[in-house]
Amino acid sequence: MQLPSRVKIIDVGPRDGLQNEKQPVPSEVKVGLVQRLQDAGLAEIEVTSYVSPKWVPQMADNHEVMQAIARKDGVRYSVLTPNLKGWEAAQQDRPDEIVVFGAASEAFSQKNINCSIAESIERFAPVVEAARAAGVAVRGAMSCTVGCPYEGDIAPGRVAYLAGLMKGIGVERVDVADTIGVGTPLAVQRAIEATQQHYGIDQISGHFHDTYGQALANTLAALQLGVWNFQSSVAGLGGCPYAKGATGNVATEDLVFMLQGLGIETGIDLDRLVDAGVFISDFLGRKPNSRVATALLNKRAG
Amino acid sequence: MQLPSRVKIIDVGPRDGLQNEKQPVPSEVKVGLVQRLQDAGLAEIEVTSYVSPKWVPQMADNHEVMQAIARKDGVRYSVLTPNLKGWEAAQQDRPDEIVVFGAASEAFSQKNINCSIAESIERFAPVVEAARAAGVAVRGAMSCTVGCPYEGDIAPGRVAYLAGLMKGIGVERVDVADTIGVGTPLAVQRAIEATQQHYGIDQISGHFHDTYGQALANTLAALQLGVWNFQSSVAGLGGCPYAKGATGNVATEDLVFMLQGLGIETGIDLDRLVDAGVFISDFLGRKPNSRVATALLNKRAG
Repeated sequence: MQLPSRVKIIDVGPRDGLQNEKQPVPSEVKVGLVQRLQDAGLAEIEVTSYVSPKWVPQMADNHEVMQAIARKDGVRYSVLTPNLKGWEAAQQDRPDEIVVFGAASEAFSQKNINCSIAESIERFAPVVEAARAAGVAVRGAMSCTVGCPYEGDIAPGRVAYLAGLMKGIGVERVDVADTIGVGTPLAVQRAIEATQQHYGIDQISGHFHDTYGQALANTLAALQLGVWNFQSSVAGLGGCPYAKGATGNVATEDLVFMLQGLGIETGIDLDRLVDAGVFISDFLGRKPNSRVATALLNKRAG
Repeated sequence: MQLPSRVKIIDVGPRDGLQNEKQPVPSEVKVGLVQRLQDAGLAEIEVTSYVSPKWVPQMADNHEVMQAIARKDGVRYSVLTPNLKGWEAAQQDRPDEIVVFGAASEAFSQKNINCSIAESIERFAPVVEAARAAGVAVRGAMSCTVGCPYEGDIAPGRVAYLAGLMKGIGVERVDVADTIGVGTPLAVQRAIEATQQHYGIDQISGHFHDTYGQALANTLAALQLGVWNFQSSVAGLGGCPYAKGATGNVATEDLVFMLQGLGIETGIDLDRLVDAGVFISDFLGRKPNSRVATALLNKRAG
């Protein structure tokens, strides 16, 4: 089995993980989480988003959080920017990278952001241009690249189409996201291969949700194609708050355990990562949604 | 990616899954579970064990259960037999296959059954001989083939040694079990390759616990070596009753979802399988420990 020798993980817990949390999370807790993630060795952290607080009240403190984090050399701090207004606000806080987004499913694009895929990309074009002119990196999150709640299976051609649009407006690297977690290893490989029509393997990251328990198998399939950038969420933060027990992003702990077992370098200290997950889970009043965290915490408890 | 075109699953829920349950499960519930599994398309079911009720009180009704199940043509019903006395009792109930067992870890063998690996195999020799003379198939469960709670990592050479002993006494096929779920894909492949020194790939089944969330990734790695027999437990039954939240066998629902996504034939109806898991979980007063079951039940609930 051919595998990369190292993997870089973007922990999206502070942003993607917390954004749907119903209970307000104070800025100092978010800052504490970012601190613990970088202390555990995470070199990329998705910190917050600059969207309207009407839509995502949990991220209304983006400025406070970005100003309060103690930046560490070599760590990349990224933020989500949905439009020029968001970019302008974000710019003040000097993110290393901004994230724009688009869906591979037309129906999802219409229902989620009320416009076609092509229109959404057109709207992002000036954001990407402004960010790059300011020397800030740009990542494109491609959602529903395997399945869509409205359309079902997504053809690889639709993923290639979206990747081509992203490339066209200057997005430097993209995430292949299985937003609803229905993907299985071969389907995920096809979505990645479609993306490779426009991006090199070094510019592609895997973002797999664990709703159906498939995220690590999908990660293994992606590793076998040479993908070495992955996104995950400490303590499995995220998921749909309306579906009890449904999970969102794969837990960073579970991903790191597999990578360490495969002999792949991540730079992450698993024990400290588990501690970071306990920190935020304690605040939220629940257990980490991670099998590795559960098993290791049981071991610690004897 | 080279994968088998079909997979046969042995559901071990009624035996391996239920054996550690603290609350007594009445025979008619066990029989109901076996019925629902075969209705869902399972062609192999591990039904019960013939061990002393002092050690495993949950399996004391082995005779009642085996007599009460409505056998279906083409389905293989297996039982665990730890010794000649167990075999003699089992024989009355006409199992299609018996299961003997051994550990790849000396420390585990000593702590679990109080004798060396070699001694345990010697004790099984007359059981295997008697079963084969009676025309009953024999499977060997090899535990701790990747990791051991006492010894840590297990060298592939120890797996080959155990497989050789199993072969020597006439065991026809073997399970490569990751009993404590610490295995990751390459380690699991090495355990399987070690087993192949003595058994063909058609005689090897994968039995992966999901304690660290690695079971499906390990299954994918095993499939890539050509393994096409796997064991799992409906609703993720099993696991250690002393470690809250720790899981045991991978859920059959999660395994089937991945295999269907890979286009691999299983003969199993996933909806009916979810129903079988709900049936036993309802009796046990909890939710199925399966991400696929959770997600599909959430979808059904709208």
